[in-house]
Amino acid sequence: MPLLAPASPHVEVDAPLLDRFRAVRGHTEAFCAPLATEDYVVQSMADVSPTKWHLAHTTWFWETFVLTPYLDGYALYDERFPFLFNSYYVQAGERHCRAQRGYLSRPTVAEVKRYRAHVDVHMVRLLDGLDETAHRTLADTVEIGLHHEQQHQELMVTDLKHVFAVNPLRPAYEPQPHVPALDPGPANFVAFEAGLHEIGFAAPPDASTGARFHFDNEGPRHRVFLEAYALADRLVTNGDYLAFMEDGGYERAELWLSMGFAHALEHGWTEPFYWERRDGQWMHYTMGGLRAVDPHEPVCHLSYFEADAFARWAGARLPAEFEWEAAARTVPMAGHFVESGRLHPASVIGASGDGAPSADALSEGPALRQMYGDVWEWTSSSYGPYPGYQPVEGALGEYNGKFMCNQYVLRGGSCATSASHIRPTYRNFFPPEATWQFSGLRLAKSL
Amino acid sequence: MPLLAPASPHVEVDAPLLDRFRAVRGHTEAFCAPLATEDYVVQSMADVSPTKWHLAHTTWFWETFVLTPYLDGYALYDERFPFLFNSYYVQAGERHCRAQRGYLSRPTVAEVKRYRAHVDVHMVRLLDGLDETAHRTLADTVEIGLHHEQQHQELMVTDLKHVFAVNPLRPAYEPQPHVPALDPGPANFVAFEAGLHEIGFAAPPDASTGARFHFDNEGPRHRVFLEAYALADRLVTNGDYLAFMEDGGYERAELWLSMGFAHALEHGWTEPFYWERRDGQWMHYTMGGLRAVDPHEPVCHLSYFEADAFARWAGARLPAEFEWEAAARTVPMAGHFVESGRLHPASVIGASGDGAPSADALSEGPALRQMYGDVWEWTSSSYGPYPGYQPVEGALGEYNGKFMCNQYVLRGGSCATSASHIRPTYRNFFPPEATWQFSGLRLAKSL
Amino acid sequence: MPLLAPASPHVEVDAPLLDRFRAVRGHTEAFCAPLATEDYVVQSMADVSPTKWHLAHTTWFWETFVLTPYLDGYALYDERFPFLFNSYYVQAGERHCRAQRGYLSRPTVAEVKRYRAHVDVHMVRLLDGLDETAHRTLADTVEIGLHHEQQHQELMVTDLKHVFAVNPLRPAYEPQPHVPALDPGPANFVAFEAGLHEIGFAAPPDASTGARFHFDNEGPRHRVFLEAYALADRLVTNGDYLAFMEDGGYERAELWLSMGFAHALEHGWTEPFYWERRDGQWMHYTMGGLRAVDPHEPVCHLSYFEADAFARWAGARLPAEFEWEAAARTVPMAGHFVESGRLHPASVIGASGDGAPSADALSEGPALRQMYGDVWEWTSSSYGPYPGYQPVEGALGEYNGKFMCNQYVLRGGSCATSASHIRPTYRNFFPPEATWQFSGLRLAKSL
Amino acid sequence: MPLLAPASPHVEVDAPLLDRFRAVRGHTEAFCAPLATEDYVVQSMADVSPTKWHLAHTTWFWETFVLTPYLDGYALYDERFPFLFNSYYVQAGERHCRAQRGYLSRPTVAEVKRYRAHVDVHMVRLLDGLDETAHRTLADTVEIGLHHEQQHQELMVTDLKHVFAVNPLRPAYEPQPHVPALDPGPANFVAFEAGLHEIGFAAPPDASTGARFHFDNEGPRHRVFLEAYALADRLVTNGDYLAFMEDGGYERAELWLSMGFAHALEHGWTEPFYWERRDGQWMHYTMGGLRAVDPHEPVCHLSYFEADAFARWAGARLPAEFEWEAAARTVPMAGHFVESGRLHPASVIGASGDGAPSADALSEGPALRQMYGDVWEWTSSSYGPYPGYQPVEGALGEYNGKFMCNQYVLRGGSCATSASHIRPTYRNFFPPEATWQFSGLRLAKSL
Repeated sequence: MPLLAPASPHVEVDAPLLDRFRAVRGHTEAFCAPLATEDYVVQSMADVSPTKWHLAHTTWFWETFVLTPYLDGYALYDERFPFLFNSYYVQAGERHCRAQRGYLSRPTVAEVKRYRAHVDVHMVRLLDGLDETAHRTLADTVEIGLHHEQQHQELMVTDLKHVFAVNPLRPAYEPQPHVPALDPGPANFVAFEAGLHEIGFAAPPDASTGARFHFDNEGPRHRVFLEAYALADRLVTNGDYLAFMEDGGYERAELWLSMGFAHALEHGWTEPFYWERRDGQWMHYTMGGLRAVDPHEPVCHLSYFEADAFARWAGARLPAEFEWEAAARTVPMAGHFVESGRLHPASVIGASGDGAPSADALSEGPALRQMYGDVWEWTSSSYGPYPGYQPVEGALGEYNGKFMCNQYVLRGGSCATSASHIRPTYRNFFPPEATWQFSGLRLAKSL
Repeated sequence: MPLLAPASPHVEVDAPLLDRFRAVRGHTEAFCAPLATEDYVVQSMADVSPTKWHLAHTTWFWETFVLTPYLDGYALYDERFPFLFNSYYVQAGERHCRAQRGYLSRPTVAEVKRYRAHVDVHMVRLLDGLDETAHRTLADTVEIGLHHEQQHQELMVTDLKHVFAVNPLRPAYEPQPHVPALDPGPANFVAFEAGLHEIGFAAPPDASTGARFHFDNEGPRHRVFLEAYALADRLVTNGDYLAFMEDGGYERAELWLSMGFAHALEHGWTEPFYWERRDGQWMHYTMGGLRAVDPHEPVCHLSYFEADAFARWAGARLPAEFEWEAAARTVPMAGHFVESGRLHPASVIGASGDGAPSADALSEGPALRQMYGDVWEWTSSSYGPYPGYQPVEGALGEYNGKFMCNQYVLRGGSCATSASHIRPTYRNFFPPEATWQFSGLRLAKSL
Repeated sequence: MPLLAPASPHVEVDAPLLDRFRAVRGHTEAFCAPLATEDYVVQSMADVSPTKWHLAHTTWFWETFVLTPYLDGYALYDERFPFLFNSYYVQAGERHCRAQRGYLSRPTVAEVKRYRAHVDVHMVRLLDGLDETAHRTLADTVEIGLHHEQQHQELMVTDLKHVFAVNPLRPAYEPQPHVPALDPGPANFVAFEAGLHEIGFAAPPDASTGARFHFDNEGPRHRVFLEAYALADRLVTNGDYLAFMEDGGYERAELWLSMGFAHALEHGWTEPFYWERRDGQWMHYTMGGLRAVDPHEPVCHLSYFEADAFARWAGARLPAEFEWEAAARTVPMAGHFVESGRLHPASVIGASGDGAPSADALSEGPALRQMYGDVWEWTSSSYGPYPGYQPVEGALGEYNGKFMCNQYVLRGGSCATSASHIRPTYRNFFPPEATWQFSGLRLAKSL
Repeated sequence: MPLLAPASPHVEVDAPLLDRFRAVRGHTEAFCAPLATEDYVVQSMADVSPTKWHLAHTTWFWETFVLTPYLDGYALYDERFPFLFNSYYVQAGERHCRAQRGYLSRPTVAEVKRYRAHVDVHMVRLLDGLDETAHRTLADTVEIGLHHEQQHQELMVTDLKHVFAVNPLRPAYEPQPHVPALDPGPANFVAFEAGLHEIGFAAPPDASTGARFHFDNEGPRHRVFLEAYALADRLVTNGDYLAFMEDGGYERAELWLSMGFAHALEHGWTEPFYWERRDGQWMHYTMGGLRAVDPHEPVCHLSYFEADAFARWAGARLPAEFEWEAAARTVPMAGHFVESGRLHPASVIGASGDGAPSADALSEGPALRQMYGDVWEWTSSSYGPYPGYQPVEGALGEYNGKFMCNQYVLRGGSCATSASHIRPTYRNFFPPEATWQFSGLRLAKSL
């Protein structure tokens, strides 16, 4: 029973801008349907933003980067909102302190919704009668706005999960019974020969996936030489990870990065985030409520530190981001995305056919599975610029480039990512201690 | 135009317990009438609790200390609530982290109101048919419960003021136009001779005020010798304080306690809390909205550090709490309390006759005014136990005694205090850096 | 075998100023005799100052407050030293950050000693030929300087003890074998009737003790009414305190101030400072080295929080400082001071006759013992000004008054205090969490 | 006049182990000759270790990894020293807290020197009569030990510089007059074509440099494809950097990484570390004392954040570490190292011929200069493992690998590095906020 079924009408990536605008905006609001007013307000840690803030910030984005410059005579809905809802765009003006987003009871949820409606009306007016020339002028910024809103949709899931999980009542977003996952069996390694690869986004539409859009950090396309390597054919599961824990994984400094072990010790980490021990059993909080950890599901909410330590314990390592990208080109872009409505990673052996290969297909020998969806896969690659990297001009140039420090790249999307948002060149990034995203790993080896 | 007029029906202190229970509980809810649901949720600093939490905690108090021990067969409304809504009573069980009260979107406001209604029904049943014997058993605890809820009513005002004030939108609790206050003229000192005094609460009802209840920290009654001293006949005003500021008060270390100056420097204090400079004018946030600082109103939201520095600058000092108490015995217990509906301190020269002496009366020579209401008055006295102090038995013994460290006593009540809550022996206490309460000062001198 | 025997020639309090100056300065240096150069440099926490700094700061004090104003033509030894060696006198100019005193390898110890010698030569020249008039002008400031240097002598002991104790090698200041203390037997309470007392320093010399000097915080003399009370006739011992520990003292929140329990929990306190468990036995670091805790010696290095919790556990309380002072007036000012050379508190039942009553004397009924020396006694009194308090004029007015906040008064001196430094009216003060001083307690009760 | 001339007899990299052991150990001690005892003790921030600690830690390294396993019957000099002087080798046992190395006055400097002498005697005995077989067994570990001690020699320079610089007296290590540097003229870019490169250490001895040793993090050798790029032919100078400052470099967020701008703001950075403004002139602390900033010397003590912001301002970027390595292969390994005795970076246009090309040579067109020595050059590369990386076995495997997180690679050595310590494949690494190393930059561009 999907958590999010009615809320994500699939829209083709080559649909008209206006249709896609309506679909993306609609999904943001559909996600909120099960929420109480109070749920929109809370910021449970600095990394988390209140749902209300996400609703307003995405709206501010349209107002600031599309309506104000492109719609003649547009007046700000409220002159005080840019200060409140600018996130980190220094060139777009002063802004409210990030860690205090949860201190704002006003504007109320109803007011924020009126703000959204107001901006939507004007956006529709702008996009509706767009002639060819105007379209070319606007299209790139509108594309960024759509992908921006999709990113915040994913953050709304992970942030709200955090808000609910730290509540001793452990309320569910939508209660959902758990169906035990099928055993995926042991992982096998798929080998790749040494060679030169083209990495990064090429001219749109991308030949293999049809993707038309990319963020500036995915380019320029350039050549990378990869020594021979192998990737596991599936994600690491809870069962795999439990073996690491039972082998003293969290106590053995020699398995960890020095910074990681210190962090784990300081924060008392002895199991993955959201896990808790009740009556001798490992439980974890999911968007469907608290339930038993299923050994056959992919392990999730790992930090880079934990993923790295697990890989070392397993006699393997994390893949470099380019190893992942070169390999991902060899498989179709399918998997469990937010459209599945599960909001939780699934076993690679699915009962239904939503992207996972059938048991039959698997009997034919190892092949890469779960490269997309389920969980973001930590790579060993520090997030940095590609050779010749140029940020977008203006305030939108702050979108990606200024964060290229002390963060690590994750690839492939998760169960909270829109199918129309992901692509092989997509680079997500988080600090190595981050755990509140749907983050897991796939093992790699040098050959 | 009072902010809070309809919500505080005055109930005589000697009315039956049930009537008083109804009145106090009703006032708590009446205060919430102007709030949006979102306003109940926010915790804008660790010292502040969400309004929702206050509503639930006061209810938990009745459930824990009255219904559970005294009402046969009473079952907890929700077994998970004591963990969430116990504040600091270690002997009453484990409890949620104070600094994270704002992380709880659930239970919702509506659920908390159902919790209140449930407990009210049972409380009324218990108090209604109470015979004489049962009354004697219960009365002391119910009295504590009533005063406890009144304390939280005051905190609801100050906490919500903080929530609104840190919001860049500066929303008003209830918009209210400002009527300029009358000039009280210079302060005069009223002298008291040296002598021995009885300090602390005597047997109820208190002879001079009719008060029947006191907290354990107001006793035992004991003798204190006071050398000759004098108290100013009115509170320090904003105008007085502006003169201190203009004389470099915040930059002159020699006027300050060492710890106070360091604190002010570290936190960038250059004016009282809630004050801000706009277009060359001093404004401050009030429950009626942001408005110009009125020089004739009492200065408010001062820390002990600021009050102490001001007094030194003025060639005076803060009164000791016993000096205040001995002096307060000489005047009637009248002033601007929460019942006035202003939620803001008023000039000692009032247009109306609500406790303030008339201009005529003042012409007869200096007399103590504003000893009660308007603002809590910082005293120089560290909060400690009286000789022979004994806390109440059981978990309620944690109410006062365990906080007797590094806090300073304030006396007299404020514009957010209920008239039926205050008395000459009442000891309020806060750490010297606290500013979010309605705290001001009256000057004193040794003779 | 005393640790410090040859270094403290006793000088009568009414000896000429010059003799007393020489004796006090000499004692400072004699204390350093056993040190290695490296020992002078280390600052093991912010509260601790390096020995080298104490040597220089006390010298700066003479230079700043005596030589510069009173010796014609005196030029600073080094113009950069006032910045380095001013402690906290804002009115005496800018100063180096306290927490970084241990970052200074230069000036070297030898240079600091040259600085001392230079200042001593000029001080002797100034004091030597002093006529009556000049003497009256100078005497008060020189007295402050002498007592100031004596305070730093005590701090040199406690600071160096900390430096040695945090070193895993636990080096001794001077190795010293331990002679087991005699069992003082159970404590008895000595009762005092209610009554009015004169508290604080009177005109010098003090009638009962001959003391000629007092700090400004000991006056003005004023009247205090004390309700009937009783004091234990001896200090609390290690054995007494072990019983508290074994009864779960550190785990029972109901025994503690709220702030104290939180502090103990946060810092992992489960025994007194300097105690450590080795091979099942309680050891503690002393200036003579690490040795077994002796149950018959006074317990030491307690915080106010621990002293308060112990007293509550014992069914008693801490004395108020005025109770202590009134009682102390009834006994001679004798005890184990720094002159004993032990640098560690001793049992009330001494083998020798250095201030402790004989076993015979004790058989005559309870009498106050150990009121002076051994350990500073925590009182329940917050450190504040007496009625009519006036600080000394000028920068020396910062000596005491500006610290009157969030500190508690200790009385009676310790084994690291000079006999000529203590008096009944002497008020020492530290924050409630401080443990690195020789601080213990005596029980009190209200009658 | 060199600061360090007599102390660094050059020893050929292919000299016998014993000779090299003697030379390296001797240089460590020679560096200390100008120090006072107090200078050995101070730890002025957590990153800095006291000189005394470096002396003992390098000795512990020989004792632990060579003497104990390889010298029959060797007994520890002091059983308590491994706890004190193990730095971070978890597998070598428990160790003292890094941030508290400055709390140890004992063992004294003299005792540490005795420890060194004791270990030297045994090392010489072991290395002296070594036959071929034993040599093969030991040689790798001894090589690590030699390079380890050379690394600590460099840290002794930078750590002591910090200790002296934070001292308001700004004492010099050895006073040294400054000779103004020659103007290097504008930088030119040297272009490199796209192509495949072998990166990392090959079989020893390295064909181009004769280097025989490498750390595990320099291998395995592997292929890297580089797109066309260019490197500046000289380091960025103080003059270059002043232009950035005068153009508002520290105030313009758009030039900075987000984390870098926040760090600069939080720490009040408005100029490079060790710079200070005196009488309108920029001065900086050097090992020769405080002196005017010379516009023609390389800028130094920059963080990664500042280097990155400067490069962006200059319309360029930092080089990737592989770009640097491929380019460095094209020039001889010469420059200003510690052997020059300057302990400060020099202009690329030198008066003497110690590695810098003559003005004549420069007239022939741009060529890479200053690739080695003077300052470590920040690269844009996060410090990570090469494909197939394997740490050394045992505790020495903790030497490098476990720090591969949130650090950035620096290349080329500095004026505090031994000439025999550096090589083209050498990877130094520090967090992006580190400034106390001799760290500067060279500009790069994509073509």
